[in-house]
Amino acid sequence: MKKIKKIAVMTSGGDAPGMNAAIRAVVRSCAYYSLGCVGIYRGYEGLIEDDLVDLNARSVHNIINKGGTILKSARSKGFRTKEGRQKAYENLIEREVDALVVIGGDGSFTGAVLFNEEFGFPVVGIPGTIDNDIFGTSHTLGYDTALNTAVEAIDKIRDTASSHNRLFFVEVMGRDAGFIALNAGVGAGAEEILIPEEDLGLDRMLESLERSRRAGKSSSIVVVAEGDKSGKNVYELASYVEQNLPEYDVRVSILGHMQRGGSPSCFDRVLASRLGVKAVELLLDGKTNLMVGLKDNLVISTDIKVAIAGGHSINHELLRISDIITT
Amino acid sequence: MKKIKKIAVMTSGGDAPGMNAAIRAVVRSCAYYSLGCVGIYRGYEGLIEDDLVDLNARSVHNIINKGGTILKSARSKGFRTKEGRQKAYENLIEREVDALVVIGGDGSFTGAVLFNEEFGFPVVGIPGTIDNDIFGTSHTLGYDTALNTAVEAIDKIRDTASSHNRLFFVEVMGRDAGFIALNAGVGAGAEEILIPEEDLGLDRMLESLERSRRAGKSSSIVVVAEGDKSGKNVYELASYVEQNLPEYDVRVSILGHMQRGGSPSCFDRVLASRLGVKAVELLLDGKTNLMVGLKDNLVISTDIKVAIAGGHSINHELLRISDIITT
Amino acid sequence: MKKIKKIAVMTSGGDAPGMNAAIRAVVRSCAYYSLGCVGIYRGYEGLIEDDLVDLNARSVHNIINKGGTILKSARSKGFRTKEGRQKAYENLIEREVDALVVIGGDGSFTGAVLFNEEFGFPVVGIPGTIDNDIFGTSHTLGYDTALNTAVEAIDKIRDTASSHNRLFFVEVMGRDAGFIALNAGVGAGAEEILIPEEDLGLDRMLESLERSRRAGKSSSIVVVAEGDKSGKNVYELASYVEQNLPEYDVRVSILGHMQRGGSPSCFDRVLASRLGVKAVELLLDGKTNLMVGLKDNLVISTDIKVAIAGGHSINHELLRISDIITT
Amino acid sequence: MKKIKKIAVMTSGGDAPGMNAAIRAVVRSCAYYSLGCVGIYRGYEGLIEDDLVDLNARSVHNIINKGGTILKSARSKGFRTKEGRQKAYENLIEREVDALVVIGGDGSFTGAVLFNEEFGFPVVGIPGTIDNDIFGTSHTLGYDTALNTAVEAIDKIRDTASSHNRLFFVEVMGRDAGFIALNAGVGAGAEEILIPEEDLGLDRMLESLERSRRAGKSSSIVVVAEGDKSGKNVYELASYVEQNLPEYDVRVSILGHMQRGGSPSCFDRVLASRLGVKAVELLLDGKTNLMVGLKDNLVISTDIKVAIAGGHSINHELLRISDIITT
Repeated sequence: MKKIKKIAVMTSGGDAPGMNAAIRAVVRSCAYYSLGCVGIYRGYEGLIEDDLVDLNARSVHNIINKGGTILKSARSKGFRTKEGRQKAYENLIEREVDALVVIGGDGSFTGAVLFNEEFGFPVVGIPGTIDNDIFGTSHTLGYDTALNTAVEAIDKIRDTASSHNRLFFVEVMGRDAGFIALNAGVGAGAEEILIPEEDLGLDRMLESLERSRRAGKSSSIVVVAEGDKSGKNVYELASYVEQNLPEYDVRVSILGHMQRGGSPSCFDRVLASRLGVKAVELLLDGKTNLMVGLKDNLVISTDIKVAIAGGHSINHELLRISDIITT
Repeated sequence: MKKIKKIAVMTSGGDAPGMNAAIRAVVRSCAYYSLGCVGIYRGYEGLIEDDLVDLNARSVHNIINKGGTILKSARSKGFRTKEGRQKAYENLIEREVDALVVIGGDGSFTGAVLFNEEFGFPVVGIPGTIDNDIFGTSHTLGYDTALNTAVEAIDKIRDTASSHNRLFFVEVMGRDAGFIALNAGVGAGAEEILIPEEDLGLDRMLESLERSRRAGKSSSIVVVAEGDKSGKNVYELASYVEQNLPEYDVRVSILGHMQRGGSPSCFDRVLASRLGVKAVELLLDGKTNLMVGLKDNLVISTDIKVAIAGGHSINHELLRISDIITT
Repeated sequence: MKKIKKIAVMTSGGDAPGMNAAIRAVVRSCAYYSLGCVGIYRGYEGLIEDDLVDLNARSVHNIINKGGTILKSARSKGFRTKEGRQKAYENLIEREVDALVVIGGDGSFTGAVLFNEEFGFPVVGIPGTIDNDIFGTSHTLGYDTALNTAVEAIDKIRDTASSHNRLFFVEVMGRDAGFIALNAGVGAGAEEILIPEEDLGLDRMLESLERSRRAGKSSSIVVVAEGDKSGKNVYELASYVEQNLPEYDVRVSILGHMQRGGSPSCFDRVLASRLGVKAVELLLDGKTNLMVGLKDNLVISTDIKVAIAGGHSINHELLRISDIITT
Repeated sequence: MKKIKKIAVMTSGGDAPGMNAAIRAVVRSCAYYSLGCVGIYRGYEGLIEDDLVDLNARSVHNIINKGGTILKSARSKGFRTKEGRQKAYENLIEREVDALVVIGGDGSFTGAVLFNEEFGFPVVGIPGTIDNDIFGTSHTLGYDTALNTAVEAIDKIRDTASSHNRLFFVEVMGRDAGFIALNAGVGAGAEEILIPEEDLGLDRMLESLERSRRAGKSSSIVVVAEGDKSGKNVYELASYVEQNLPEYDVRVSILGHMQRGGSPSCFDRVLASRLGVKAVELLLDGKTNLMVGLKDNLVISTDIKVAIAGGHSINHELLRISDIITT
């Protein structure tokens, strides 16, 4: 592999808190190692459209604590075509870029792998998504922040739930993965947690709520992942319970996109800083097709194909914990 | 009016941050003036059911910063009947309560007036609702906190809106009043604000959004009050725009009940403290049928019937300000 | 007065949350009224050094929610000299600037008045300081945010004070004015509040703390303004109490400069937006030597000399309230 | 070991966010497994004084999100004496308590070990301290929350530092361990980080600050742990820099006890829940003299003597990361 002199960095797919901190770490690492650095706007779409900008250490001043991504993000149809990727490659060559750091999720990494296979272009991935559904890292960028955002919102909802003796169904993000629902549910003291990975069964939920009520709980929170296994959406769930447990005064709240934003937690900032530095150092060492990640508080790297193919399963033990602590 | 020796306090209607701080101020004022104090659970409903508790200065320790209401709140059908009110009166007499402080909104005050008319029972109201829709006070308890909650959530949404060049419709509370939408909209830098008091016109909104886009704004927030004049709900508004401005990537977020909870702002805590003390002092002075409130940073009192009948109009000037600062 | 075609804006003196929102409102108002707009870096110092930048509507994108000031601030010795002011004037004329908006406090306004007297240059002031010590406005920019910052910090301190049955002396900002101490003290439920405007008397404080302890309060917070009348600094106060009430386990916390930063509250953002628009509109109307402000929730203007000369007195009633609610 | 029928739980030493969540998990686990549960107030001190309270599942309602500890904490001189421990033992036997869960740090665990050795009383420890300085767990309760508190405060300080081109020395907690300083420093983008474990050298700091200034950084943050190796306190450090780099406008801020309080982060709540359940289950399984902890996101247990004796070293790699990303 030829010596790396200039690195390009992009954010791709859904945005997540900590992406800016990761951009900053990549840019500052390039400056530290006397490499050039180029930012790509709007992910692969911007790469195809040559929407690039030179970045130096001062360009990323005061962004470590900002939500969103200064490089913006997008999903790209063009990059799924051979022509699109060819154009992307030419734009990188034109700018004398030698390697690419992609901050994003599975879909973004799949594009990176294809790009590497077709053009032999060095790529390293940094896992950035609030969903935490990526193999090869215990935590993805943004996940810890999203948990805090969800828990703080549910704390507020509990204030009003308690005041009115109500039952709230709170939907959190996670179409395919229950990480946010499970952890925010435990953290917020939710009575029930419904996730894509496990079918609690509606009857069991009814029984449990009924038991809670009899045990003297005057209000309850049920946290539901978007992709809950029951197949019912949160409004249907609420009206199902309303019909079967008419003594409950039921309300619904969908936390929505606010979970994607906000100033990153300290955890996410430190993680982003570590992964960003590592990504640049791997490329400098002549490595490619890797994803950086965290395992047991150490920074590791994984073959990016393995990361894409692997599943990241939730901690089922937490469902048991949840049952116990909401006794 | 006979000398007041014991005061009862309740929270009624929708809960609001600052209600606990007001309860604390009422209870501590009673202690300061050597009066007895009784808390009524669940508003008028609890009063009818004799769900009362003696409160002393220590009972309200460490609640000034808590959202919700330790006395809980409810809407009461029973209190709309003569029998219900008779029972409520008997419960107060039984406990030797001499006066009642009601923390709530218009509906709760209407009950208090009726109660006073029927039984000559001294009542004072403290305006507590996040909607700020009460005549006789510049600010109701909880309004300032709800604005901060809404603005912080919209800040997070803007992070992701900016990252993806999206248009978000964000629904905030306010079925009949646009206070939250108008102020949170200005505070969050929303491009458009739709409120119950004014029909902006859907065509004007389209024009304005189109103009924003041409001016180079890459993302936009439209803040919509629940009771927006257009009559369309927020999802209908979003799809209307999506059809007419297909270049926009539109999303919807409903902030919902989290706006009712959370630790009160300093403003709401100080306001609650001042109003709570004043309510007790008015009763001690032999006054009744008043609502306490704030005007020009001074605590005032208003005939409670005037407060109920009067309208509290929004500051239309803010709509003009909003147009200017989102140029 | 000649027609205004271009306006310059600066922030001066101590920074305060909401200054950016005010800059944005001034810049956007200029754009709305088709005026040119120039930003001056580092207040009068930057003006003398010709450290200016053209600003348009897009320049102030996404700053409404940012603490600090994008124009930076400084205190200027040069502007106190005739030569310095002459240079400042020449720089403005060179850029064809017709009027100046100064966001700051008393000292900054004094400079503006002098500048107007010497060169007939139109000036309008916007009160921006966390101290709220300016006549002619009920609220200065940043004051509401600083109160929330202080109260949230004291809430955290109370957690640990309660857990360990400790007495904390918490120093908040306010060298000459007790606004922050008084309101944050009431908002945080402080047992005692020491401010520059009133000498509580150390003996009375000892008595009060002793009474609290006997009444069963297991922990206490005393909020002290920097410029507390007793003349003792917070560490001396703490050791005075420790010596006289040895049963107390005493700790000190100085909140310090964090009170100047942070994302502005909704209140400060709306206030900044309204004042910024008004400042530009006054200049457009041919007015000068005014300070904009808030009174009874309406935007007003005051002769800037009157604002400088006038005192803004604290609400002594709040001291009485504080005594009652910490019974 | 005899079958466990009743468990006592206490918090001891410095309080930390998440202690309440751990108490809740212990109490609810006891309820789940049909065990009795007793809370001990003020740690070993309260145990000696028989300051105990029966706890059931409802007693710990709505505390998962509260800072501090409802059981209060204290350091105990009495427990260091044989008589004190004898009294403590008798009080437990009197109440028919069979085992003890201690939530605290090294010092608290040392007391537990001694107690077990003398009376054969089953004990399990849960690591609760913001300092993260305990062997046998990657994270102690409260550490993650304290990091977020510190970083949010430093973010605010940076707002004002940037506005005035100032250099701030910010002291964070950590008398013997640099975990908070190191991670909060990286998370807040601090230019320098001074910790007890490593002597950066004052000259190197001066050089680095000088280099930053020349590189165009207009403001800087230096994060200093209480127990910084240089031996100088934060005020001395500041004046040392002021003398040697007179072009810097230097300020000091000591974050202090607010770092111990506040609502726990989601991470700390989930960790507390998992550790609390595990502690009870270990005792039920007949285990004793263990400390529960987290390793690689799994709950583990360690011989409590090993935990006390072992050191928990900081991640020196983070110092290198910090150098790179503040280039």
